[in-house]
Amino acid sequence: MCDCFVGTIAPQAPSSSIHSRPMLARQALKQLRSSSSVPTTRSFAVLTVDTINPNIVKAEYAVRGALVLRSNEYVSQLARGDTSLPFDKVIPCNIGNPQVLKQEPIEFHRQVLALVNVPGLVNKPEAQKLFQPDAIARAKFYIDNIAGGTGAYGHSKGSAVVREEIARFLQRRDGHSADPEDIYLTDGASPAVQNSLLALIRNENDAILAPIPQYPLYSAAIAINGGTLVGYYLDESNTWGLDVKELARAVKEARDAGKIVRAMAVINPGNPTGQCLALENIEAIIKFCKQENILIMADEVYQENVYAEGKKFLSFKKVLRDMGSAYDDVELISFHSTSKGFTGECGRRGGYMELVNIDAGVKEQFYKLMSVNLCSNIEGQLMVGMMTNPPQPGDASYDRYVEQRDGILGSLKRRAVKIVKAFNELEGVTCNETEGAMYTFPNVTLPVKAVEAAKDAGMAPDAFYCMQMLDSTGIVVVPGSGFGQKEGTWHFRSTILPPEEAVDEVIEKTSKFHAKFMDKYR
Amino acid sequence: MCDCFVGTIAPQAPSSSIHSRPMLARQALKQLRSSSSVPTTRSFAVLTVDTINPNIVKAEYAVRGALVLRSNEYVSQLARGDTSLPFDKVIPCNIGNPQVLKQEPIEFHRQVLALVNVPGLVNKPEAQKLFQPDAIARAKFYIDNIAGGTGAYGHSKGSAVVREEIARFLQRRDGHSADPEDIYLTDGASPAVQNSLLALIRNENDAILAPIPQYPLYSAAIAINGGTLVGYYLDESNTWGLDVKELARAVKEARDAGKIVRAMAVINPGNPTGQCLALENIEAIIKFCKQENILIMADEVYQENVYAEGKKFLSFKKVLRDMGSAYDDVELISFHSTSKGFTGECGRRGGYMELVNIDAGVKEQFYKLMSVNLCSNIEGQLMVGMMTNPPQPGDASYDRYVEQRDGILGSLKRRAVKIVKAFNELEGVTCNETEGAMYTFPNVTLPVKAVEAAKDAGMAPDAFYCMQMLDSTGIVVVPGSGFGQKEGTWHFRSTILPPEEAVDEVIEKTSKFHAKFMDKYR
Repeated sequence: MCDCFVGTIAPQAPSSSIHSRPMLARQALKQLRSSSSVPTTRSFAVLTVDTINPNIVKAEYAVRGALVLRSNEYVSQLARGDTSLPFDKVIPCNIGNPQVLKQEPIEFHRQVLALVNVPGLVNKPEAQKLFQPDAIARAKFYIDNIAGGTGAYGHSKGSAVVREEIARFLQRRDGHSADPEDIYLTDGASPAVQNSLLALIRNENDAILAPIPQYPLYSAAIAINGGTLVGYYLDESNTWGLDVKELARAVKEARDAGKIVRAMAVINPGNPTGQCLALENIEAIIKFCKQENILIMADEVYQENVYAEGKKFLSFKKVLRDMGSAYDDVELISFHSTSKGFTGECGRRGGYMELVNIDAGVKEQFYKLMSVNLCSNIEGQLMVGMMTNPPQPGDASYDRYVEQRDGILGSLKRRAVKIVKAFNELEGVTCNETEGAMYTFPNVTLPVKAVEAAKDAGMAPDAFYCMQMLDSTGIVVVPGSGFGQKEGTWHFRSTILPPEEAVDEVIEKTSKFHAKFMDKYR
Repeated sequence: MCDCFVGTIAPQAPSSSIHSRPMLARQALKQLRSSSSVPTTRSFAVLTVDTINPNIVKAEYAVRGALVLRSNEYVSQLARGDTSLPFDKVIPCNIGNPQVLKQEPIEFHRQVLALVNVPGLVNKPEAQKLFQPDAIARAKFYIDNIAGGTGAYGHSKGSAVVREEIARFLQRRDGHSADPEDIYLTDGASPAVQNSLLALIRNENDAILAPIPQYPLYSAAIAINGGTLVGYYLDESNTWGLDVKELARAVKEARDAGKIVRAMAVINPGNPTGQCLALENIEAIIKFCKQENILIMADEVYQENVYAEGKKFLSFKKVLRDMGSAYDDVELISFHSTSKGFTGECGRRGGYMELVNIDAGVKEQFYKLMSVNLCSNIEGQLMVGMMTNPPQPGDASYDRYVEQRDGILGSLKRRAVKIVKAFNELEGVTCNETEGAMYTFPNVTLPVKAVEAAKDAGMAPDAFYCMQMLDSTGIVVVPGSGFGQKEGTWHFRSTILPPEEAVDEVIEKTSKFHAKFMDKYR
């Protein structure tokens, strides 16, 4: 075996300068040990950054990168009572995680979860006082119809009754039938996207179209699976519009480079860009993908989050089916999640994918792939069930459900408008309207001196800007370089999720920081 | 692009005879459509069984394979009131899924889950009547210490308070310190194993040692990641013992074939084989892996399930640390889960891995890899917390907890003994003692005529036997060929999980079936 030798270990330079310190320490340790009485044949660790699967090293996931690690340190410092920082709390605007920012869970959903988890609770007299009758009825339904309840492995595609709830939801939403057998429940939408890419990517010649800017799940998962990402640029000057001509350019360049373009990821409403695609646009994409033989991966996890006047979410499935049976050979995988919308149940890891016009044999392969993990977590499945089958008019929980739903969505809309307006008032900053989803993605024109200072610090200029924002305000945002952006432009992504009473504080702190930053590097 | 052409589609033979029927139908459909007014350039689906990532096609996962699919059909048939089957229920002995077979969940754990899910419930007067005070206290602790509770994304490695609970558990169990920073929570143990293999396998030259017979997660995940499985045989004649000489043989053969042996998977207690490794055996494995520069993946999900007299579970971590600092360069990843033991909370998908003596840079890569999925489900994490930090003497739930724990483990032991004894009484069947875990793995000497009949049916002989067992009894077991076995030997795996009152029925039905089968093919 090439990386194993016998005998005393001679001093040796580390093979990579980047990781030299830990490797030197390790080797020193091993040399020290080689003088003891135990076997001395072992020289190198099996797993190092140099010998790990290089696709993992290539993958980047900025949403939880260096900034988040530093912000975690600040959280610990503050928790220890440290008052040396220029802020008294860390405000995580880096990730769409509503409940960590005080969004309340939908009460009906949580009551059902409590009831299914304690055997016999649905029949206790005290429970009638604590829980709504429709929550008790739904809990009984799940208990009666899911063998072993929340504690047993279920079907690898998800519990049949939940898949039926989803299918009925899809039918109501789209006006077209949906088959529970084509629905696969997953631990959030992320593993569904990753499994789809795993299925699509055979080697580095297989290319996946993904938007730039894009939620980095796509770039990370394409890298991990050893494929090639082909970016198509969204048009910032046209409210982050998706132009089929740009798609055609990207496909042509990829093919000219010898790549096989297998699929196109489209995020609607957009993350981080917030655009909500119009009917004509979706039709044009579907026609393009039919013509070019490209599978569509539609990330529709923000389907409930549309705020702009006159805009409406349309699913790719609906548009495709509306276009008639001539398009029944366009392959589509669409994704949904309990983490977004007004449900905001991120920690649940509930999600699903629907396979539309997908080959029967491939569906079996997906089933097998998911069966290796046995099943997704059952409570996440139940959360999907409740999200797609919520209380109805006349149900005891209905009024409260509507109040919570409309309250959350109305508030998100107000916050989106307020934050976008504030960002547009900053020097050198322009920010498109957040039509949907949960983010703003302002464009920041950074002074030349700031770009140089970033270079000296070994950082991308926008990462430098965001790190300074964190250091002086405690606000965590994600640099645009984590999502991709046109060369020479700089952005950051901030969620619109701080609670309304805190939005003014976030705006004030950001504005003050920005003014100081601009002055410093002017 | 090579698999796309323009113009009218000419009739064409499918490229694979195996999948010819669905492909022919698809092509016929497309030819039909090519005469309509829509674009006619699209000819083939992007994703077919011929064009999907071939590693997925290669992967096999018998625990949920053809037998399970047929058993699902029987379940539906019975649910429809069909009385034509020779049995009135399906008994799933194919998978370690205790709660589907009436094992009751630990009450304390479920009470805490209910309480954390309904905001304010911990303070309601009615709740004091429904829940134990220590469950309320634990729920308050989690609510106070996990930002956003069960509804928010948590740390990608898992909530800090749960990792601390696990670390204290490991310290008590092993008598050696454990660092919460080395613990990574996952959606069950399976994704932890898969991520470890993803990290280890760079290409088909990277080999992983895995036991034969083995739980097919390993073979499936190695195939999916494009690596090479190198089997080491467990010695059936020595109660499925693990002999280091056999390991050496396997490693030598792999290296002679040009492979790099990166890691060794060891399942202790064994699945499907049930052996519980002795101290000397574990020490020998560790020495061997040190000498040969092999990382150890220790699957210890059955650590609470030890039944044999004089046998005791010892973790690889404990033995490694007991061997002294000279072995601090042996890399170990160990896995645990909420699905087994007496917790049996499979549907929760709770699990973790501990990284022992793993390079600091690699730990960062694991963090990044897990951050792409954001976090594992929080309730699964809490279940791990409660499993590793259960009620203590003096707590209100303690007596009931002990009663449930001892009741379940005592019953599993009785069932193991009873089933093994019964199998050993069948003609041509020998069955090792189930020292631990949840399975029996009897060896069945099949008559020559049965082997021939299986061949005619296009099935492995043991799969043929198991399918006939299902067809005539409704009992689902898994053929030994799904786990690997010495050539010319045939086995099946059955769990020991049917409730005690049903064990006699399972034994009786199996025995009758076996006698008839042997008579038929004698």
